[in-house]
Amino acid sequence: MGDRALVGLDLLFTSDLVSQYTSALSSGFSFVSFDLFHPKVFVPNCPELTTRHGIPSTRSDLVFQKDGKNITKCLVGKLSHYLDVDTELRWLRNMNEVTLQKQLHWGSHLGLPALSMRLNGPSIVNLARLLTTFIHDEYTPVKLWIIVPMCIDSEAPESHDTPVSEVTTQSGPEHSDSPWHWWMQLSSLASDITDALGVVLQIPKNLPDEPVIARWLSEPVCCLLLCTDVFLTNSKGFPVLPKSHQEVVRRFFKLNVQVLITGACRHDRGYVTYQQYVTWLWKNQSSPDVYELQSKGLEDQLQEPLQPLRDNLSSTTYSIFEMDGYKYTAYEQAIYKALVHRCTRSDPKGDDAKLESTPACQVVMVLGAGRGPLVNATLSASKRADCPVRVYVIEKNPNALYTLQDRMSHEWRGLDVHLICGDMRALDVPEKADIFVSELLGSFGDNELSPECLDGAQPHLKDDGISIPCSYTSYLTPIQSLQFYNETKRMRDPTNPSRTLIAQETPYVVRLRNCQVLCEPQKVFTFVHPKPDLKESNSRYSICTFPIKNEAIVHGLAGYFEAVLFDDVTLSTHPQRHSPQMVSWFPLAIPLDRPQHVRAGEHVTVHLWRVVDSHHVWYEWALTEPRPSRIHNAAGQAYKIAL
Amino acid sequence: MGDRALVGLDLLFTSDLVSQYTSALSSGFSFVSFDLFHPKVFVPNCPELTTRHGIPSTRSDLVFQKDGKNITKCLVGKLSHYLDVDTELRWLRNMNEVTLQKQLHWGSHLGLPALSMRLNGPSIVNLARLLTTFIHDEYTPVKLWIIVPMCIDSEAPESHDTPVSEVTTQSGPEHSDSPWHWWMQLSSLASDITDALGVVLQIPKNLPDEPVIARWLSEPVCCLLLCTDVFLTNSKGFPVLPKSHQEVVRRFFKLNVQVLITGACRHDRGYVTYQQYVTWLWKNQSSPDVYELQSKGLEDQLQEPLQPLRDNLSSTTYSIFEMDGYKYTAYEQAIYKALVHRCTRSDPKGDDAKLESTPACQVVMVLGAGRGPLVNATLSASKRADCPVRVYVIEKNPNALYTLQDRMSHEWRGLDVHLICGDMRALDVPEKADIFVSELLGSFGDNELSPECLDGAQPHLKDDGISIPCSYTSYLTPIQSLQFYNETKRMRDPTNPSRTLIAQETPYVVRLRNCQVLCEPQKVFTFVHPKPDLKESNSRYSICTFPIKNEAIVHGLAGYFEAVLFDDVTLSTHPQRHSPQMVSWFPLAIPLDRPQHVRAGEHVTVHLWRVVDSHHVWYEWALTEPRPSRIHNAAGQAYKIAL
Repeated sequence: MGDRALVGLDLLFTSDLVSQYTSALSSGFSFVSFDLFHPKVFVPNCPELTTRHGIPSTRSDLVFQKDGKNITKCLVGKLSHYLDVDTELRWLRNMNEVTLQKQLHWGSHLGLPALSMRLNGPSIVNLARLLTTFIHDEYTPVKLWIIVPMCIDSEAPESHDTPVSEVTTQSGPEHSDSPWHWWMQLSSLASDITDALGVVLQIPKNLPDEPVIARWLSEPVCCLLLCTDVFLTNSKGFPVLPKSHQEVVRRFFKLNVQVLITGACRHDRGYVTYQQYVTWLWKNQSSPDVYELQSKGLEDQLQEPLQPLRDNLSSTTYSIFEMDGYKYTAYEQAIYKALVHRCTRSDPKGDDAKLESTPACQVVMVLGAGRGPLVNATLSASKRADCPVRVYVIEKNPNALYTLQDRMSHEWRGLDVHLICGDMRALDVPEKADIFVSELLGSFGDNELSPECLDGAQPHLKDDGISIPCSYTSYLTPIQSLQFYNETKRMRDPTNPSRTLIAQETPYVVRLRNCQVLCEPQKVFTFVHPKPDLKESNSRYSICTFPIKNEAIVHGLAGYFEAVLFDDVTLSTHPQRHSPQMVSWFPLAIPLDRPQHVRAGEHVTVHLWRVVDSHHVWYEWALTEPRPSRIHNAAGQAYKIAL
Repeated sequence: MGDRALVGLDLLFTSDLVSQYTSALSSGFSFVSFDLFHPKVFVPNCPELTTRHGIPSTRSDLVFQKDGKNITKCLVGKLSHYLDVDTELRWLRNMNEVTLQKQLHWGSHLGLPALSMRLNGPSIVNLARLLTTFIHDEYTPVKLWIIVPMCIDSEAPESHDTPVSEVTTQSGPEHSDSPWHWWMQLSSLASDITDALGVVLQIPKNLPDEPVIARWLSEPVCCLLLCTDVFLTNSKGFPVLPKSHQEVVRRFFKLNVQVLITGACRHDRGYVTYQQYVTWLWKNQSSPDVYELQSKGLEDQLQEPLQPLRDNLSSTTYSIFEMDGYKYTAYEQAIYKALVHRCTRSDPKGDDAKLESTPACQVVMVLGAGRGPLVNATLSASKRADCPVRVYVIEKNPNALYTLQDRMSHEWRGLDVHLICGDMRALDVPEKADIFVSELLGSFGDNELSPECLDGAQPHLKDDGISIPCSYTSYLTPIQSLQFYNETKRMRDPTNPSRTLIAQETPYVVRLRNCQVLCEPQKVFTFVHPKPDLKESNSRYSICTFPIKNEAIVHGLAGYFEAVLFDDVTLSTHPQRHSPQMVSWFPLAIPLDRPQHVRAGEHVTVHLWRVVDSHHVWYEWALTEPRPSRIHNAAGQAYKIAL
C-alpha cells in the first residue's frame, strides 16, 4: 500500500465525468471507477453509436483530456454488467460477445490502467476465453479487475440478481459453487493471462467463516470493494466499519490492496467521510514487527537459497545475519548452558552443581565463524558461566578472514582465541573440542549442508563433546498460493528452453505472504550431532500425508525447521511456534509444476527425498495423493547443492 | 510385429546361459530373458562378489561373447525379484536401493537392450525415482520392461506373494488398487523417462472383464507374458490357448507386441511347441482390411492436418484420395439421386416420377475438382440417371489444372464440360448451378474450411439448388492414450522454445491405435448447405458432457465426422458407424497439455470453440470437468487455418 491508503470511488453513470473525477481526487480519493458505456443503452452490433432514444452510448475520447493532459491513469473503466457471454441463448451470447469486445477495446483505446467486470455465477468459460484472446491480442498493457463477492451474502439486497440455487445457503468453503470456485475456474481457464488478472473482492455485510476469508488471502486480491451499506454510523455521525470488518480489511491491507467505495452516499458530508475513515484505518494498523520490517519489499519474491559451502558469502549477507539479535542471544544462552553442563560434569569429585574450584578450560570450536558473532557469544557465555574457554575460530571464506584477523589483533587480543583458516571438513587442529558451535542451518534446516559439514568436523569433537545445535528437524506443509505459482512460471527463461521446466523444479526461499498454509506442518528429516555412527548416510526419504479440511489448490510446499541448540534453547521457523523477532530465515518454498486441485476430505501425500552423491546433495519430491505427480528434480537435473 | 512373431523364452537361472541361448534361438525363439544375478544369492553392499557359500552372484561379462561376437542384443536381463525399494524398513530399503542400482548398471554395462522387473503392488514411488535417476544418468540407451499382471488373478498360484488386501476380490476396473493403478502411478511419477518404459503384460488364466482388457490396449504394452500354465493341451498333445485368450492375444498383436513364454515346460517336445503355437497364432490373424493396409506404418503417428485452401495439394495426395473407392461410389450415388430428384421436379407438368420426355439439362458445378474424380462420378451418374448435365469444373490449384486440361482435351472432349480456373469464393460463371458437388471435408468435417468455401460459392447456386454434401456434423469423445500424449510431448522442439507448448495445443490427424475411446462420441458442430442465411456466422461454441464409466486418464479428444451427401447417402468416420472400407480420413486427435485423471462416475465436460476472424479459422478447447484446464490454443496462438 506504499505510504498511504489508495481509496477509489465508484461513480454512477454521469455525463459530467471530468468534474466528478476532479472533485473526487481533490477530496482525497486516488482513483475513480466509471461506466465505460451508458448502463441503460444497449449497443449490440451497432455501426451507429447512438440508440433509437438518441442517448449516446458513450463519450468522445476527448472528454478524457483536461488542460491538454490525459486523466485516464486514475480511472478504472467498468464494463457493462449485463454482458453475459455464457448464456445458452446463442443469439444473445453472440451479441454480448461482440459488445464485450467493443467495450474492452474501447477501454484499452482510452489507455485506462484497468477494466473491471463482475462475476455473477459459475458460467464463466466463454468469458475466460474472450478475456484471454483480448489480452493476447492487445499490445497496450491493461489489467482486468475481476469483481467477486467474498461469499454469497444471503442478506444482500442485490440477491435478486443471482440465480436461486446460489442464494439458498450461506456459502461455506465446502460449497462447491461459491464465488471462490467461479474465480478458481476463471483463473485456471485463463492461466495464460494470469498476470493481467486481479481480484476486486467485495466484502459482504455478513462475514463468512474464517476458512473462506483465509482462502481469499492466498488469491491475487488487488482491491477491496466496500459498499456504503456495510458501514455503520458512529456516535459522531461518521461512517465506521464493524470491528470484525476492520480486522478483515487490515488483514488484506498487508497484501497492499486498494479500496473502492461503492453504493449510495449515506452521509451529509459526502463520500469523503468514507475515504477519510479508510485512510484512518490504514494509518492505525498495528505497526509492523521486526520480521515484517526486515522483509519489506521481499514479500512473495523468489530468492535462490544460499549455498554458503560453495559460495563465499558477501559482507552484506553477513551484516543481515548479524542483525538478528534473537538468534545470537539464543546461541549465547545455549553456549552458557553447555559450559555450565560441562564444567559441572568435568569435575569428577564435585557433588555440588556450583563449583567453588576453578573449572577446567573448555575447548570451543566455532565452525564457520563468518565475521565472528558466535565468537563473541562464546566469550560472553564463558564470562557469564565463569568458565574459561579456548576458542578455535574456523572459517574458510578468505574475505571473512580479513575481518577475523583484524578482530584477533584488536578485540580478542590476549584472549585464548585461535584463528584457523580452512574447511571444517579437513581440519588441522592441535586438540579435540568440548563444544562445537555452528550456524550452518538453512531455511529447511539441513539444506545448506550442515549435516555434511558437521560430520566432516566430528572427528575433532571429544567423544562426550557437545554440538550446538545438537539437532534440527525440517517441517513441510502444502500451500495454496497462485502468486507463488505465477512467480515460478515467470522464472521460465524464454531464451533458454532448458530453463523452462527447471524453474518449477527448484526450491526457493520466499517470504510467503499471499499464501495459505493448508495444513499443520509435519516433521520430515531430523539430524542429530554428534552423529552416533558416522558411516550412517545423510540421505533421507520421508512420506507425509496431510488431511485437507477445505477444498484448495495445492501450488507447492512450504518448508520450515526447528533446531535444538542445547537443552531447552531452540530456534524455530515453524509458523505456529516461530521464535519471536527472529528474522534470519524465510520459509523454503517448493513448487509443483502442475497445481493439484484437492477436495475437502481428500489427502495430500508428499514424498520427499534428500539425495546424496559424492559431489552434491539435492531434494526430489512428488505427490501421490490426490493424484500422482511426476518426480520433481529427478536426478538433481534442476537443482543441486554442491558439497 | 513385422513379418513374423517375435517370441522369447524366459530362462531359469543357469550356469550355462550361452548354450541355452543358442538352443532357444536355433529352435525359433527370437530372444531369451535371464536372471542378471543368481536368484538365491543376495548381494547387499558387497565389495566381494561371491557370498559366504562361495556361489558367484553373477557371471563374467566375457560369457556374453561367443566366437568374438556379443550375444547381448537378443537378451533381456531380469532384475532380482526381491528388490523391494519401497519397504518401510529403512535398512532394508537402503540395501535394496544399492543392489538395484548395481543390477541396473550391470545390465547397461553388458549392453542389454532391455531390463525387466516386476510390479508386485502399489508401493512403487521410490522405485519410480530410482528408475528415473538411472535413465537420466545412463548414456547407453536401455529399455525398462515393467512386468505387470493384467489383473489380480485370484486363482494364480503366486497369490501368496501379494498382500491379503489385494487377493480378496477379482479386480475390476473400479478397483482402485489394481495392477493398472500401479502402472498408472509409476508412469505418472516417472513421466520424464516415459520413452524408456514398456509394459510386459502378464496374461492371467482367468481373463478379466472387457473394460480391464480395453484399458491395457491404450498403454504402451511391448510384450505379453504367457505362462505355460495358461495353455491347454489339444487332442494331438500340443499346447494351445483357450479361445478367449487367443482373441486377447490377437488384439494385442495389432500393437506389434512380442510374446515371452515363461513357466515350466509341460510338453515332451519342449518349449519349441509354445513358440510354434504363438507363431501359428500370429500367422492366422484375420488378414488386415483395406483401412489397416492403408494405414500401415502410420499408426499413432502425428500428422499435421492438411490445409488445402492455403496449400496446393501434391500429386501424391491426390493419388491417395482417388484410391478411396467407397467414397467416389457414394458420391456417384448421391449425384445420381440428386439428378433423379431434380429431373423429376423440374418437369412442372409431369405426375409420373419417371419421365418419358427428355429431362432438362442440369448444371453441376464440381467445386475443388482436384484431378477430376468427381467429374467422372458426375458423368457416370448423369448417364445412369439418363439426365443430361453441363459440368463446370472449378479448381484453384494450377498444378491440378494441367491434368484437368489434359482430360478436357481427351477424355471429356465433346462433352458439355467446362473448366474454370479460380477460387470458388470468387467465381465468374455464366449461369447458376442446379447442383454443387464438393469434397472439402477434413477429419473433423469443417476443419478444412468447407463451410467458408461453400458459403463463398453459394451465390452461384440456384435458390432451390442442391449441395452435395448437404450437411455434415463433427463428433468428439475423450480418449486415453499415453502413446498420443508422449508423441505430442516429443513434438516439442528444444531448439525453439516458442514451439514447446504449441505442440500440445495443435490438433493432429492420427490413425489412433494404442488408444482407448472413453465414451460414445457426441455431436459438436453441424453445417448445412446451402446455408439459409449467408449472414449467419460460421463460428460455433459447443459444450459436451461425457459420463465416465471406468477410471481413466484423459490424454486428449478424438474427433470424427458424419456427412450427408444427399438423401440417404452418407459418409461416416464415427467409430461405431464407420463407412466400410473408406480410407480417406483418420480421426482428428486434439491434445491436452495436462492429462486429467478421472474416476468412475465422474464427468468430463469439454468446451470447444470454432473461432472465425477475417483471415483465419481455428479451434480453442478447454475442460471444466473433472477439473478446469487452461484454454488451449487461445487466440489461435498455436494453430490457425488460413482462409
